[in-house]
Amino acid sequence: DFEYALENDVKPAFGRSDESLNRLMTGGITVWGPEVTEILDQGTLLAEVVKNPENRGFRSAVLAGSPKTGKTSLAAQIAKGSDFPFIKVVSPEDTVGFSESAKCASLKKAFEDAKRSKLSVLLIDNLERLIDYHPVGPRYSNLVIQALLVLLNSPPPVGHRLLILATSSDRSFLRDMGLMVAFGSVIDIPRLSTAAQIMNVIGESNIFSDEQLGAINHKLEELVDGKKFGIGIKHLLELIESARQCEADYRVSMLMSMMENISLNLF
Amino acid sequence: DFEYALENDVKPAFGRSDESLNRLMTGGITVWGPEVTEILDQGTLLAEVVKNPENRGFRSAVLAGSPKTGKTSLAAQIAKGSDFPFIKVVSPEDTVGFSESAKCASLKKAFEDAKRSKLSVLLIDNLERLIDYHPVGPRYSNLVIQALLVLLNSPPPVGHRLLILATSSDRSFLRDMGLMVAFGSVIDIPRLSTAAQIMNVIGESNIFSDEQLGAINHKLEELVDGKKFGIGIKHLLELIESARQCEADYRVSMLMSMMENISLNLF
Amino acid sequence: DFEYALENDVKPAFGRSDESLNRLMTGGITVWGPEVTEILDQGTLLAEVVKNPENRGFRSAVLAGSPKTGKTSLAAQIAKGSDFPFIKVVSPEDTVGFSESAKCASLKKAFEDAKRSKLSVLLIDNLERLIDYHPVGPRYSNLVIQALLVLLNSPPPVGHRLLILATSSDRSFLRDMGLMVAFGSVIDIPRLSTAAQIMNVIGESNIFSDEQLGAINHKLEELVDGKKFGIGIKHLLELIESARQCEADYRVSMLMSMMENISLNLF
Amino acid sequence: DFEYALENDVKPAFGRSDESLNRLMTGGITVWGPEVTEILDQGTLLAEVVKNPENRGFRSAVLAGSPKTGKTSLAAQIAKGSDFPFIKVVSPEDTVGFSESAKCASLKKAFEDAKRSKLSVLLIDNLERLIDYHPVGPRYSNLVIQALLVLLNSPPPVGHRLLILATSSDRSFLRDMGLMVAFGSVIDIPRLSTAAQIMNVIGESNIFSDEQLGAINHKLEELVDGKKFGIGIKHLLELIESARQCEADYRVSMLMSMMENISLNLF
Amino acid sequence: DFEYALENDVKPAFGRSDESLNRLMTGGITVWGPEVTEILDQGTLLAEVVKNPENRGFRSAVLAGSPKTGKTSLAAQIAKGSDFPFIKVVSPEDTVGFSESAKCASLKKAFEDAKRSKLSVLLIDNLERLIDYHPVGPRYSNLVIQALLVLLNSPPPVGHRLLILATSSDRSFLRDMGLMVAFGSVIDIPRLSTAAQIMNVIGESNIFSDEQLGAINHKLEELVDGKKFGIGIKHLLELIESARQCEADYRVSMLMSMMENISLNLF
Amino acid sequence: DFEYALENDVKPAFGRSDESLNRLMTGGITVWGPEVTEILDQGTLLAEVVKNPENRGFRSAVLAGSPKTGKTSLAAQIAKGSDFPFIKVVSPEDTVGFSESAKCASLKKAFEDAKRSKLSVLLIDNLERLIDYHPVGPRYSNLVIQALLVLLNSPPPVGHRLLILATSSDRSFLRDMGLMVAFGSVIDIPRLSTAAQIMNVIGESNIFSDEQLGAINHKLEELVDGKKFGIGIKHLLELIESARQCEADYRVSMLMSMMENISLNLF
Ligand SMILES: Nc1ncnc2c1ncn2[C@@H]1O[C@H](COP(=O)(O)OP(=O)(O)OP(=O)(O)O)[C@@H](O)[C@H]1O
Ligand SMILES: Nc1ncnc2c1ncn2[C@@H]1O[C@H](COP(=O)(O)OP(=O)(O)OP(=O)(O)O)[C@@H](O)[C@H]1O
Ligand SMILES: Nc1ncnc2c1ncn2[C@@H]1O[C@H](COP(=O)(O)OP(=O)(O)OP(=O)(O)O)[C@@H](O)[C@H]1O
Ligand SMILES: Nc1ncnc2c1ncn2[C@@H]1O[C@H](COP(=O)(O)OP(=O)(O)OP(=O)(O)O)[C@@H](O)[C@H]1O
Ligand SMILES: Nc1ncnc2c1ncn2[C@@H]1O[C@H](COP(=O)(O)OP(=O)(O)OP(=O)(O)O)[C@@H](O)[C@H]1O
Ligand SMILES: Nc1ncnc2c1ncn2[C@@H]1O[C@H](COP(=O)(O)OP(=O)(O)OP(=O)(O)O)[C@@H](O)[C@H]1O
Ligand SMILES: [Mg+2]
Ligand SMILES: [Mg+2]
Ligand SMILES: [Mg+2]
Ligand SMILES: [Mg+2]
Ligand SMILES: [Mg+2]
Ligand SMILES: [Mg+2]
Repeated sequence: DFEYALENDVKPAFGRSDESLNRLMTGGITVWGPEVTEILDQGTLLAEVVKNPENRGFRSAVLAGSPKTGKTSLAAQIAKGSDFPFIKVVSPEDTVGFSESAKCASLKKAFEDAKRSKLSVLLIDNLERLIDYHPVGPRYSNLVIQALLVLLNSPPPVGHRLLILATSSDRSFLRDMGLMVAFGSVIDIPRLSTAAQIMNVIGESNIFSDEQLGAINHKLEELVDGKKFGIGIKHLLELIESARQCEADYRVSMLMSMMENISLNLF
Repeated sequence: DFEYALENDVKPAFGRSDESLNRLMTGGITVWGPEVTEILDQGTLLAEVVKNPENRGFRSAVLAGSPKTGKTSLAAQIAKGSDFPFIKVVSPEDTVGFSESAKCASLKKAFEDAKRSKLSVLLIDNLERLIDYHPVGPRYSNLVIQALLVLLNSPPPVGHRLLILATSSDRSFLRDMGLMVAFGSVIDIPRLSTAAQIMNVIGESNIFSDEQLGAINHKLEELVDGKKFGIGIKHLLELIESARQCEADYRVSMLMSMMENISLNLF
Repeated sequence: DFEYALENDVKPAFGRSDESLNRLMTGGITVWGPEVTEILDQGTLLAEVVKNPENRGFRSAVLAGSPKTGKTSLAAQIAKGSDFPFIKVVSPEDTVGFSESAKCASLKKAFEDAKRSKLSVLLIDNLERLIDYHPVGPRYSNLVIQALLVLLNSPPPVGHRLLILATSSDRSFLRDMGLMVAFGSVIDIPRLSTAAQIMNVIGESNIFSDEQLGAINHKLEELVDGKKFGIGIKHLLELIESARQCEADYRVSMLMSMMENISLNLF
Repeated sequence: DFEYALENDVKPAFGRSDESLNRLMTGGITVWGPEVTEILDQGTLLAEVVKNPENRGFRSAVLAGSPKTGKTSLAAQIAKGSDFPFIKVVSPEDTVGFSESAKCASLKKAFEDAKRSKLSVLLIDNLERLIDYHPVGPRYSNLVIQALLVLLNSPPPVGHRLLILATSSDRSFLRDMGLMVAFGSVIDIPRLSTAAQIMNVIGESNIFSDEQLGAINHKLEELVDGKKFGIGIKHLLELIESARQCEADYRVSMLMSMMENISLNLF
Repeated sequence: DFEYALENDVKPAFGRSDESLNRLMTGGITVWGPEVTEILDQGTLLAEVVKNPENRGFRSAVLAGSPKTGKTSLAAQIAKGSDFPFIKVVSPEDTVGFSESAKCASLKKAFEDAKRSKLSVLLIDNLERLIDYHPVGPRYSNLVIQALLVLLNSPPPVGHRLLILATSSDRSFLRDMGLMVAFGSVIDIPRLSTAAQIMNVIGESNIFSDEQLGAINHKLEELVDGKKFGIGIKHLLELIESARQCEADYRVSMLMSMMENISLNLF
Repeated sequence: DFEYALENDVKPAFGRSDESLNRLMTGGITVWGPEVTEILDQGTLLAEVVKNPENRGFRSAVLAGSPKTGKTSLAAQIAKGSDFPFIKVVSPEDTVGFSESAKCASLKKAFEDAKRSKLSVLLIDNLERLIDYHPVGPRYSNLVIQALLVLLNSPPPVGHRLLILATSSDRSFLRDMGLMVAFGSVIDIPRLSTAAQIMNVIGESNIFSDEQLGAINHKLEELVDGKKFGIGIKHLLELIESARQCEADYRVSMLMSMMENISLNLF
């Protein structure tokens, strides 16, 4: 039975791909605001559209947000939450230093693998790196982006269903490179921008006393007030790690000085 | 008999090529307006010009329209409707990651195959991808476009007849790349732009009650009124799929919010 | 006898080259105006300059005109009319997808073949394609154009005589690429621009009644009047083919609507 | 035991890498001002953040300062001071004339080596040279920078800890190339800019009499006064070497004339 | 005897090189004005500077003039007139389609050959072609020009003497490419610009009656008067060849119409 | 004994390198002014800084001056005058037509050779040619300049001493390419610009009578007066050679007309 053989062939790969999904999940998801839940809900809806036998079963979406905003973790969470039996990860780590054509071949292979299973998620982490994009020039691998544009437009065989999820750090990159149109939809991943959102994360860290938390909250409200302030969740977690290393008395001032640098765009 | 050998040689290929034609036809053609019939009529006329023994039997045309407007399906429909015994498809899917010269060779081969038969259609889907075009730079494969320009200008052997159909997403791309002149004619594929056209498609979906259809019609008329609104047929079908996934009560508002995003050019 | 061997070696090639000359002659030459005769006369004069033993016997000329104006057919006609025993054709069709250096080698070979015979015409069809020219960039094969510039400046051995004829779609291309100076002379191939010229061709087609011809003539005079209208002979013949396919009653209006598109530069 | 094998495998490399660390330390560190101590303290904090088992154990920082300001020595000092058992050095000297892909492979290998140990420092000296950056063009190896961007964003296996230190001569290079964001933090390495700082170094050289030192101090105060003067520690040590070579009587005037050239930006 | 071996080795090459010198001399030198004599005198002086044992014996000069002004013939004439025992010709014809590195190798070989003889002329015809120069881009072979710049600056072994002569169509090309400085001197080759100069050449052709010559002279004086008119000797000889082909009565008017085209810059 | 083996290995190379040093010295050094002595003194000082065991023993300098100002001869003279036991020459002549990577390898080898000896001079003649620099584009070998920048920043092993001397025709080239900073110091090589300086060289030639010398001096003073005149020593020696070839009576006027051309920037 051909179908059977296919799934047989796919099974061993499944374990491997699951492991590479875990590699992308470097920690849990803190729900620092309703924005987080909403993103996960959009992912769930997409997965259901793909699953529904009345539909054609071929969708793609890209999670777009500034660096260190949690894109990769959220995409992985959506993939995992979809409960699709086959999840394939395309991560730039796996093709470091590959030639353009080797990258193409690896991308093509990932799509083929995903299409061979009846119900798959294909997670492409970091589109910029996939196509070797660099803004100075700009440079990019035309070979790889051409392959991507073709593959994003090639439905799986009849009866097979495929959800493609990708991440990218820059909406204008997506638009300029023609990837905005090529993906069916874009899910924006925001930075934390209010004192309350940030406090939700700081509170979980258990390194500040209640008094210190009050002080931080107060200073954050001042900092944020009237300005356009924003910090990615991954960046915030790093600052908290650095603060933890200081002696207790210096933690608040150190954390706040790093926050100020961010608000001054010094970093 | 040489002629016989030729056709013999071609036959097995025929089956294969027919299959690849089906691959391009991902669904039926909804006649959402007289524009659709007119496009198919233009295709029929071209096929007849090629067949007519009084004529030279060598024509090419490109179907040009925005992304997701149904170009590929319409080109396939015209090819199928021509009833020519040999139909060859050049699809970017078949040459993903090929080197420029491999792409050239494959294109040349397709033309040779098509010319060997007495009466052929050659369908080239997605000219942008064929020549690896990207607007950033811009980049394109000069090797492939040179080959294309030469092949488009080389008639089949005396007595053999060839109709070349191609698709492209961008009229200005065609003009800039010199493909407008190289193809004998351009057939424009429009977007749906009136409430009535859109309702023709939504009505067929069977997911809205009559009351909901009325509401949608009303809102669409407001949305479209006075603005330049347009949505490709493939895009519209995707929105309907997403709406189907919502609970019945939210379907109308979800569909309309997606329509508004389009009208605001947010997507 | 060395000379004898040379000619012997050349003979078989002759047959072949004659065949490839025929390939360029896709139909007869309609004398739609005195311009046509004049062009052929200029060709005859060049051939005589080359043949005259008092002269050095090395000349080159390029036929330049817009796409579809009949350049290739006229160049082939001049070559054939020269009655030179050896005619070599360099056609882009023969080197589709070749690498730059393979194109060079093939060009060099063609010149060598031509110079080995005592009296040769070398016909280079479509200089743009020969050098892989594309205006976007612009791109061209520097390797091939350098070879061409050198070969155009290298006379055949003493006593041997060589006429080089080429075609090109664009005078400004020729000037910019330094080919204007490299060729000894440029022969301009015009478009048909008066109602009378066009009627000469339409009349020959035998698809319109006398009444229809009168109507067309009248409408053409209106169309052309005061505007800069022009249509290549090859383009015109295509329009007539399309018109033939219509039912008799629609032919005139179809022909005229296509003519109007041309005058509006829509094509 | 896998862990054991890993460390076994790493041990021999350790000796070698330590040797290459010494190669970067071409002399001691003179504390010419509190700035020096502060830089070393920042390094110590980073190392502790990485070591702390409560943290994720993956950090990177770049030491940025003008040419000849002591970046390499300070980075080496921080690495040595961290007391991490494995220190890997990526120095441009080791890949002179390598192809881009060989450079990539060598970079990837260095990261893999570092990640295999439980607690490592990876020191990348001179980012400009690593990516073959040259401002005329500009030119850079996109292959290498893409690899670097990916590797900087790939944490070591769970339980393994990695501190990445790099040096670069130009903050705007870092920002333009997207390396500012890719590295977690930037440590600025200043030039000596006051007479007192410079005298701290000159005093240690033992080549000037006390009277001469007084004269130099006086002249330096004049030179620096009101201008933006700055000299890297490595540059200053070179000037002192040149002065030593002069006869005692000319030393002061020679040193000061070289200092003036610097302040006039003649060098 | 080493010297002897060298010369022995060189002798056979000599014959060959002499033959290639003849290939450049496609006809005699008409002294159409004192300019011609002066050019030849400058060549003679250079040869004597090189021969004089009191001098270092290494000089280079480039003959620069518009296309078809006789540069190649004059350079060949100077080389021949020098009576140096070894003359080596570097002609673009010999390296058509060569790769950049093959061209380099061939250039290097030519210099080595020339330096091995005690007294050599090295004639490099057409510098633009040697370095594959094209103004669109511009493009050129950096590999070849770098080789040329090095070789032009490397004297022959002590006691050996070398004169390098080159031709080029464009003074501004020479200046921009740094060849003006690299060659020791530039000899300008002018176009014929007065009626008298032109009549000197036309008179020699024996195809016009005295009366016709008078008429031509008169018309030329009108044409040239007050304008900046110029025609290269090679171009003029071609016009005369074309005129010869006409019937006697049309010759004058044909010649003059071609002259007018030149003065209108239509060619 | 390792040290012994090293020196043994180096010895044979020594002879060879000395020979290549002589190749650069195409004549003696005329002291046409105190500028010449000063340049040689700067070289001597550098050599002593490198030799002094109290210093680190690693210095580099570049001699920068217009074409034909004597840079190569002066660098060679400094190298010879240093009396270092090992002198290695990197001359563009030795790598004509080499690929970029072959040039890199050869450069790297030269540095390794030089570092293996205890006391070496490495003379790099003509930096522009070493890195295949051409201002049109501009073009340069990034591979070679990256290698050079790394090698210039890598000290020899402890106890070994290395002086690097280079020549270049253009200060702004050095600055733009980042070579100004990479070399420790720049020694400017001037042109002769006063009548007295020029007369010092002309006087040595013995081809003018005292009366002629007086006339030349007078004319030179006029020529130079108030203008910015300059001529390289190598260029001046060439003019004198040309003048020698004239008959005695014409020598002065010929020399002066060549001088005027230079002052008019015609050459
Ligand atoms: N609500 C959240 N959303 C995303 N990540 C979260 C959230 N809460 C906590 N995290 C943690 O934040 C980190 C986000 O890192 P992640 O690599 O996903 O960010 P990223 O945007 O992909 O970064 P980069 O731009 O560097 O690729 C993870 O460690 C994750 O466990
Ligand atoms: N009138 C119609 N014309 C074209 N397609 C239609 C029409 N009615 C329904 N369809 C359906 O719409 C879809 C059109 O998809 P198709 O791939 O042809 O669009 P496309 O313009 O080629 O898209 P893309 O720009 O992504 O290549 C098909 O699934 C087809 O069945
Ligand atoms: N007077 C004429 N001159 C040229 N061609 C003519 C003339 N009369 C009829 N024809 C026909 O017109 C057609 C001209 O086609 P041809 O390929 O020569 O044009 P072209 O200018 O080379 O086109 P392209 O720009 O596509 O290369 C031929 O079929 C030829 O038989
Ligand atoms: N406080 C200091 N900081 C750094 N280096 C110092 C200090 N004091 C003395 N030094 C010495 O100064 C020299 C600094 O050289 P180093 O190669 O580190 O500079 P660099 O900035 O890396 O130079 P480059 O820009 O050329 O790479 C070393 O020899 C070091 O021993
Ligand atoms: N005074 C003259 N100087 C040069 N050539 C002359 C002269 N008189 C007659 N001739 C003839 O003119 C022709 C000059 O051709 P030549 O190839 O030397 O010109 P060119 O400038 O090198 O042309 P191109 O620019 O095409 O290389 C030769 O046939 C030569 O015999
Ligand atoms: N004072 C001097 N300085 C340098 N060269 C001198 C001096 N006096 C005489 N010469 C002679 O001048 C010539 C200088 O030639 P050299 O090749 O060194 O110049 P260069 O500047 O390197 O030229 P290029 O720019 O072509 O490389 C040599 O022949 C040398 O013997
Ligand atoms: Mg990520
Ligand atoms: Mg399509
Ligand atoms: Mg043609
Ligand atoms: Mg450093
Ligand atoms: Mg010539
Ligand atoms: Mg020199």
